[in-house]
Order: sequence, then C-alpha cells, then structure tokens
Amino acid sequence: MFKKKALLLLAVLFVPALLVAQSGKVSDNLSLPSKILNGERKYGIYLPPDYATSEREYPVLYLLHGSGDDQTGWIQFGEVLNIADKAINDGTATPMIIVMPDANTGRRGYFNSMKGDWLYEDFFFNEFMPFIEKKYRIKKDKRFRAISGLSMGGGGTFMYALHHPELFSAAAPLSAAVGPVTLEEAKISYKRNTPDATDEQMEAYYNRHSAVALIKAIPDASKNSIRWFIDCGDDDRLSAGNSFVHMAMMEKQVPHEFRIRDGGHTWTYWRASLPKVLEFVSASFHQF
Amino acid sequence: MFKKKALLLLAVLFVPALLVAQSGKVSDNLSLPSKILNGERKYGIYLPPDYATSEREYPVLYLLHGSGDDQTGWIQFGEVLNIADKAINDGTATPMIIVMPDANTGRRGYFNSMKGDWLYEDFFFNEFMPFIEKKYRIKKDKRFRAISGLSMGGGGTFMYALHHPELFSAAAPLSAAVGPVTLEEAKISYKRNTPDATDEQMEAYYNRHSAVALIKAIPDASKNSIRWFIDCGDDDRLSAGNSFVHMAMMEKQVPHEFRIRDGGHTWTYWRASLPKVLEFVSASFHQF
Amino acid sequence: MFKKKALLLLAVLFVPALLVAQSGKVSDNLSLPSKILNGERKYGIYLPPDYATSEREYPVLYLLHGSGDDQTGWIQFGEVLNIADKAINDGTATPMIIVMPDANTGRRGYFNSMKGDWLYEDFFFNEFMPFIEKKYRIKKDKRFRAISGLSMGGGGTFMYALHHPELFSAAAPLSAAVGPVTLEEAKISYKRNTPDATDEQMEAYYNRHSAVALIKAIPDASKNSIRWFIDCGDDDRLSAGNSFVHMAMMEKQVPHEFRIRDGGHTWTYWRASLPKVLEFVSASFHQF
Amino acid sequence: MFKKKALLLLAVLFVPALLVAQSGKVSDNLSLPSKILNGERKYGIYLPPDYATSEREYPVLYLLHGSGDDQTGWIQFGEVLNIADKAINDGTATPMIIVMPDANTGRRGYFNSMKGDWLYEDFFFNEFMPFIEKKYRIKKDKRFRAISGLSMGGGGTFMYALHHPELFSAAAPLSAAVGPVTLEEAKISYKRNTPDATDEQMEAYYNRHSAVALIKAIPDASKNSIRWFIDCGDDDRLSAGNSFVHMAMMEKQVPHEFRIRDGGHTWTYWRASLPKVLEFVSASFHQF
Repeated sequence: MFKKKALLLLAVLFVPALLVAQSGKVSDNLSLPSKILNGERKYGIYLPPDYATSEREYPVLYLLHGSGDDQTGWIQFGEVLNIADKAINDGTATPMIIVMPDANTGRRGYFNSMKGDWLYEDFFFNEFMPFIEKKYRIKKDKRFRAISGLSMGGGGTFMYALHHPELFSAAAPLSAAVGPVTLEEAKISYKRNTPDATDEQMEAYYNRHSAVALIKAIPDASKNSIRWFIDCGDDDRLSAGNSFVHMAMMEKQVPHEFRIRDGGHTWTYWRASLPKVLEFVSASFHQF
Repeated sequence: MFKKKALLLLAVLFVPALLVAQSGKVSDNLSLPSKILNGERKYGIYLPPDYATSEREYPVLYLLHGSGDDQTGWIQFGEVLNIADKAINDGTATPMIIVMPDANTGRRGYFNSMKGDWLYEDFFFNEFMPFIEKKYRIKKDKRFRAISGLSMGGGGTFMYALHHPELFSAAAPLSAAVGPVTLEEAKISYKRNTPDATDEQMEAYYNRHSAVALIKAIPDASKNSIRWFIDCGDDDRLSAGNSFVHMAMMEKQVPHEFRIRDGGHTWTYWRASLPKVLEFVSASFHQF
Repeated sequence: MFKKKALLLLAVLFVPALLVAQSGKVSDNLSLPSKILNGERKYGIYLPPDYATSEREYPVLYLLHGSGDDQTGWIQFGEVLNIADKAINDGTATPMIIVMPDANTGRRGYFNSMKGDWLYEDFFFNEFMPFIEKKYRIKKDKRFRAISGLSMGGGGTFMYALHHPELFSAAAPLSAAVGPVTLEEAKISYKRNTPDATDEQMEAYYNRHSAVALIKAIPDASKNSIRWFIDCGDDDRLSAGNSFVHMAMMEKQVPHEFRIRDGGHTWTYWRASLPKVLEFVSASFHQF
Repeated sequence: MFKKKALLLLAVLFVPALLVAQSGKVSDNLSLPSKILNGERKYGIYLPPDYATSEREYPVLYLLHGSGDDQTGWIQFGEVLNIADKAINDGTATPMIIVMPDANTGRRGYFNSMKGDWLYEDFFFNEFMPFIEKKYRIKKDKRFRAISGLSMGGGGTFMYALHHPELFSAAAPLSAAVGPVTLEEAKISYKRNTPDATDEQMEAYYNRHSAVALIKAIPDASKNSIRWFIDCGDDDRLSAGNSFVHMAMMEKQVPHEFRIRDGGHTWTYWRASLPKVLEFVSASFHQF
C-alpha cells in the first residue's frame, strides 16, 4: 500500500519537472517606431518556456550585440534559445525574458553622440525600455532587471548600468570595449570624430563615457548598488581595458566578479560566457 | 495488478508532459513545378523544433541522396529527424532547415548532361533553391548555407560547392563519387555514355565535373572560401578517389578536414557521419 | 553484526592490496653489444604489471621511434607506461612486453644501407630480437609478436612486417614514411645519397624498400598473413603516401584497417593512436 | 550467509584491480650543505609512482613556496602528493619529479640582495639545482625543466625564468608578487630597505627584479623561449600587478596563458591551480 501511494506521489511530483522539458521562443525581426531616432527600430526577443501558458510576469535581461552585428546576433551565433532553455531546465537560471535591441541601423552604437545629433541612449531608456516592458509581461522593479552585452555591447552595459544604477540589479559586460582609460587618450579619438569639440565638451563627454572615470566617481553609498560580472578572454586585446576597470573597482572597493578565461574575441567565448551570465543575473533576481 | 495501475497512471500523467517535449518535423513528399526539368519535382524537408513557434529565419543545409535513392532516403534510412533533433537539443548543432531534393526521377544525378538535354544543376540553382528559400524562413547569405550528400550526392556536393563558392560556406561530401581523376579515365566513361562527343566537349566537361580538376583550378584567393569536411569508410572503394581529392587539396593548400573511419558504403556509416556534419556546418554558420 | 565483520574483512583484504604498489615498469637506458653495428646499442622496455610477480611468458610488441628521436621517445613523449597500464587494467589490451630499440646512434634508420655498410635490419633480426626474446620471458611464436612505430618507425614497421610475414601477426604503422611510391621517385633520392648506384641496384633496393612495391608483390597465399592497422593524421603530408598504400592494398585485396583522423605529425596524435594499437595487436594475439 | 561469501569473493576479485592504484612519495625535511648561504638548506621532494621501480630519468618541476612558508608548504597545504598522483594516474600529467626548496631560513626570498650579502639566486642555480639534478634521476635538458610557485614564489618564478630562459621550458607563476611595475614605485621600497643605495644601483636592481621591466627587455628572438601560465584570483590585490604583466606581454607579443579565476590569496585557490600547472608543464615537456 505504501509503495502505491509513494509511486503516485512521485508521479505527481515529477509532472512539473517533465513539463519544463520544453522550449522557449525566439523572434529576431520585431520592431517598434522611434521618434527620437526618427524611424522604425528592430529588436529580437527570447520568451521563456512557460511564457505562453502562464499569466505571470518575468524578470528581464537586456542583452546587447557587438559592433557590426545587429539584433539577430545573439540568437543566431550566441545560441540564446538553446542556452537559455538549457539553463532554465537545469535550474541554473530562473525563467526570464531576454531582449536584444538593434544598435546598428542608421548609426552604430549605444551612446548619445557628443553633438547630440544621435540619441540612442535616450531612445533606449525613454522609448525602447518602456515599450518592451509594457508589451511583454515584465516585472518592472530594479531587482528584476539586468543588462549584459559583448564588445561594443559590453561598453553599453557598463555605461547604462553606471548611468542608471537605480534601474539594474546586475550587469555583465563581456569582452567589453570599456572606452578610454584616460582623458588624454579620449581626446585623441574625440578630436578625430568631432573636430570642433571644445575641451569642456570633451571632458564632460569623457566623464560620462569612460568606465574607469565613472567608477572613480561612484559615491560610496552606491558601491553595492549593482552586482558586477566582468569577463574577458586572455587572447583579447580588450583584456587590458577590462583589467584597468578591475583595478579601479579594487581601488574603489566596488564589489565585483572578474574573470579572464582562455580565449579570444569570438562567439565561442561568448557562448561559454552566456550560461554564467544567466546564472549570475538569476542570483541577482533572487537575492534582494 | 498494482504495478499495472501505477504504470498506467504514470503513463497518463506523463503523456501530456512528453507531448510538449518538442521535436523538429520532417516531410518527405513535397513538390514544386519545374520548367527546366519539365515536370513536378519532389523534395523532403526537416524543420527544426522551434520553427513553428518562432518568427526567425534559419540557416539551411542541402542534403543530397545517393544513386538509386530519392528524397526520402535521408529521412527513412538516414534518421534525419532523430539525429538532427538530438544534435540541436544537445547544443552540438544550431537549429537549421535541412532540404533534401529528389535527383532520381526522369534521369538520375545532380549534373547537367554533356549534350544539354538534362539540366538538373540549372534546375537546382535557378528553380529549386529560390523556391525553397522563399517558401521557408531561410537566411539567404552564403555564411548560412551549407551542402552535404552521400555517394552520388557526395559528388554533387563537390560539384555544387566548387562551381558556386559564393553560395556555400561549408561542404561535407560523404563517401563521395568524386568523378574521374584523370582526363583519360574520364574519356573512357564519357565515350560509353555519349559516343559522338568531341575531344573538346569531353575536356570541357571533365574540367567542370572532376573534383580533382576543379580543385587544381581554384584561384589562390578562393582557397579559404569553403570549409570542407570529407569523410569516407576504409572498406569503401570510393576511399581511393577521396584520397586523391585529399592529396590535391594538400598540394594546393586548400584547408580541409579529411576522415577515413572504420566502415563501408552503408547507411550505418552515414548515420554515424551525419552528427559530425551537423556539428561541422553549425560551426561554419557560427564562424568561430 | 554481519556488516561490521564484512567491512572489517574487506578492509583487511584491501589494505595489503593498496600497500603493494604495482604498475608496469619502464627502463629507457638499457643496452646490448652488437657485432653487426660494431658497438653498444641502446633500448627501452615496458614490462607489464604482473611481470615481476608471475613466472609466465608474454606477447611482445616492437615499437619503433621516429627520425631524430631515440629509444626514450615513446616512454617520455608517448606515455607508454600510463597508456599501457591503463589499457591492460581496462582489459582493452592483454599484458605484453613492449620493446623500443634505438635507431638513432651511429646512423639513423631501420634499413640496411644500399651499399651494405650499415646493416640495421640485420642487427634487428639477427642480434636484437634474439637477445630480447632470450633475456625477457617472451612467447616466441609469430602469433604473439607484433610491430608498430611512428613516422620513420612506421616505415620500419612496413618493411619489417612485409619482409618477415612469418615473424609478425600484426603491424601498426603510424604516420608512416612509406618510402617512394614509384621507382622514378625512388631513383631521385637514391642518386642523391648513393651517386654511384647502378640501375639494377636501385631497382632491387626499391623493390625491397617501397611499401607499395612490396604490397604489389605479396603472393596471394600470404595476403592474410598479417593484420594491418594503418593510421595517419589528415594534416600530415605523409597521409598522401599512406593513402597510396591503402589503394594498393585495396587493389590487391589485402585486408587492412585504415584510419585518417583529425591531426598532424605530432605526439598528441600518437598518444591517441597508442591505445588503439595496443587493442588491435591484443586482438591479434588472441585470435589465431 | 550468501552475502558474506559473495562479499569475500568480491574482495578477492577486486584485489588485482586495486593493486595498480599506486602512489608517489613525498619527503619534506631533506637538506643539502650550502657554501653560498653558509649553512644547511632544507628542501622537499615529490617522486612519482614508478620512480622506485623504474630505471628511467624524469622531467622536473621546481615549485616555490610563498612568504612566511617554507619547503613543507606545498606538501602540507598544497596537497602535492594527492594532486600529482591523481594527475599522473589520470594521464593529465606526465610522471615528473617536483622539488620544493626552502627560502625562509636565514633570510626570506628568492632574490640576491641589493648589497650582495645574501645570494639566494646564486645558491639556487649554482648549488641547489646541480645537487638535485645529480642526486635524483632527472633529465637535464631545458625541455624537461619547469618552474612554478605562489605569491613570493610566483615572483621567484618570474625572475628565475626571465633570467634563465635557457634553463626552463615552462613557467607558471601563481598569484605572483610581480615586483614593482615602475622604477619610481621600486625606489620607494628600495630606499626603505637599503637607505644608502645609489640611483644607479636601484635602477640596475629594478631592471633585474621587475617582471614588467624584464618582459619589456626580452629580445625578439627569445619571445617564444618559455611557455607561460599566469594565474591569479579576482579577489587578490596582486591581480593588479599580474594584469600589468599580461598587458606588457600582449604589448610585446610574448605568447602566454592568463587566467583570472574566482578567488583570493588562499590555499584553496592554489590547490585548484596545481592540477592546471601540472597539465600545462606536462604539455611543455611533450611540446605538442
């Protein structure tokens, strides 16, 4: 008699476990209108396995592509669908929505331009995020919002999280272009792109777009505001910039995880990073 | 009695759970009209697990059958469905569409005939590929297109990829009939099939339909244009021709993978090749 | 109570087992005197785990090093000790003695010279083998004797087995230098090394030192005399020569295993080959 | 009753299987006389499992302790015996001898002092290494010699390998104290320890004892002379210095592996590093 009940109990308990052996859904060619960027903007999205059948809200991860790529990159080359499905089914990640905007159309990059004639960051926070978080069942609290990205998108991750610590609980820049490390280095590139910029403009822009400068300026009270996971390959020239960020965070005593693993500036590296990012941001969603 | 009930209960409870465990979908009896070949042409297709629920586009693998077989071969004997589902679920292959045309109806083979009275290759590139890539959500860039096939279809793989390096990023001929290795050998067979062919016709046809001749003629700038995976059993007489191709590629310094594994000219061999092909072409789609 | 005793018993029985340290044993700096080569000759040896404690005789594998290496190569770089111990403990190989002669001192190579002023092959069969098979407890039948080697030693493996099919039951040339494939190719190198050689001498030498020539000359009655395992990497230029051997054997219907695996002319490749060689020759020792 | 017999039978049957589970041997309190350091010097040693039963020679790894520790540290806290046995039995490391000198008696550290009144580096190369490589069966070629160490011993690893690239094929500094990164930083500490040092003395000493300075001075022809594996925890303040070394090597195009893993300046970290070090130096001994 006992065994019968136990078996029944077992069966009942196992059902939900087996039910999750299903898959999420990706789309790579959706769009929204933007007034700020003056035109239609593309994005891709991953919806977790139970999105279609549940009525609940989910945490969200904004996942930024690199230079020369677009909103399809993480889906095609990054294997978001397989990797997120596997992490959610394994229980190493919590079900979440993953949003991948296009920052390659019109102009390239996640920053507002120095001259103010291209305001991607404004678009991201004022149009894109509100649109996404209204259209999909997303929990709208800081504790349930994370950001990650690779290369140029790693740079975007640093900027957006450092500019808006009130919006993100976790940030995971991968192989990030961290921006200039000194004002002198910055001015050289600014002058090339914006010859008529004044010293004041360049210094102001540097202070707002250099990860190292922004870290040095973090108020003591905000040092624990964001959980950081910074990851870069040892064969990647960008590991130098990421090491300077690590040193600046050590100096400033900003808690952070830092990894240098074997590898270069490649999708092989980022496909190995993504499961760690999903696990890390899931722990952030859980912990506050 | 008890066990029976419990088993039944378990089965009932598990069924819905298992039903949602998704797999891809195969069809083996679809068709399109062809003006070039003057009639309806059959094809089979594998659509990956998330095809029905996603809105995105996929890479494509053209997978050619061998002599005496047709578009159903890879599905029935090659176990495309099980093997591709498993590879995609394991993460060793990226979700892709696999297309299997029929080259056995009317006349047999993937080549245009010497006399021009049968133009299968023209059909493939001018009618079949455009039809397929319009009808299904397929990424239309070279980097997302691969070709493979066995025996006669391995020969077709060599020809199509060598004729159109601008269309395929990866080619995986299995147990391939590589065509004649010397002009003399070629003429013997040409004369048998086309007694009135002139020397010029035979030489031109040889230069376009011998893998070795085509490899020797690859321009230096195109040597890295295609990623090659060439595989043949040690008990297969065709391993000789494939070895000559390997030597020609070594001589010409054309990068390629070459494998001689234990086995003959059998479906057992090709079922063991297919997972490697899917992994190899996925790496080409990823490019790292 | 029972379990306690059983545990105690187990502990008692296992303790001496763990205290007695027994694996195979390698020596890499032994020697014997040679009249034929006029001096002391080095060799290395692997004795299987139970050699010291048993009184039985063992099969023997002669394992030849490559050009530029000596009797220590298979021990240091080839990891003979670990790999043979593991194969024997796994049961994939039968306990055997592995003998590694030096063919790098004085002159290099396993062949008699054309002029007859260096007679390594004579040394091997008339002095070395008798010495070894007397000094160690070795079964002296063909069925218990095998030969393998890499690169130049793969060439030696071909020669010795093809010259003496009455002495070896299995031969496993790895990444073998198979010697010239045609007489014309042979003459070019012979003339370089022995300018005064006559055409008759060169032809005779070719017929005795080209694997392809020797295979073509195998009498029908001897085609099953030796079990062959031929293995070479696809990035190894020597894969061309090995492919010609494979074709010659197919043509002649000489049963053989042929493998082309992923890799080059490296110890990484040969360390992956060695377990297969040990398994293959063990099956030969068992099967007659 | 049955179970008892079965258990006994099992035990008897398992004995031969367990017999091969053998172990290396460590000693932590050996010594040699030193004229240079004017007294007896301690060292520890690990001899691989087959050392006692073989007659062959082995590669050697010099493994340096950190500040405040001595020749017993890697044995007691670093678990050299278990970790090396496991790596050798797994086949991830080749059998090698591991030598651990004491650099904590009399004075602390692996360097010659600036004033020349303590010449540990001279002792190491002129007395210790010759003594060890004579007393134990060690292969005396560069290709079979490696060096590693932690913290202060990581600093020693950098110095010894950079001073003597002709002696070591691989170097693996762990959580290394890399020395001053600039001459200015160096002078501050030199003046504290050696108040009467001249500028010339300090500059010369810096050039010989700063890893960054030594790397900048590597001649182009020597950039591939040593295989480097550099590893440091992200919670370790020394990760800054190691990052500077990584940048200097990138700048100079000196091939090297660099890892920043999760962890601090602890034995937990180094016990996780040691298997990687053994695998890395084994690959150097194999050279493929």
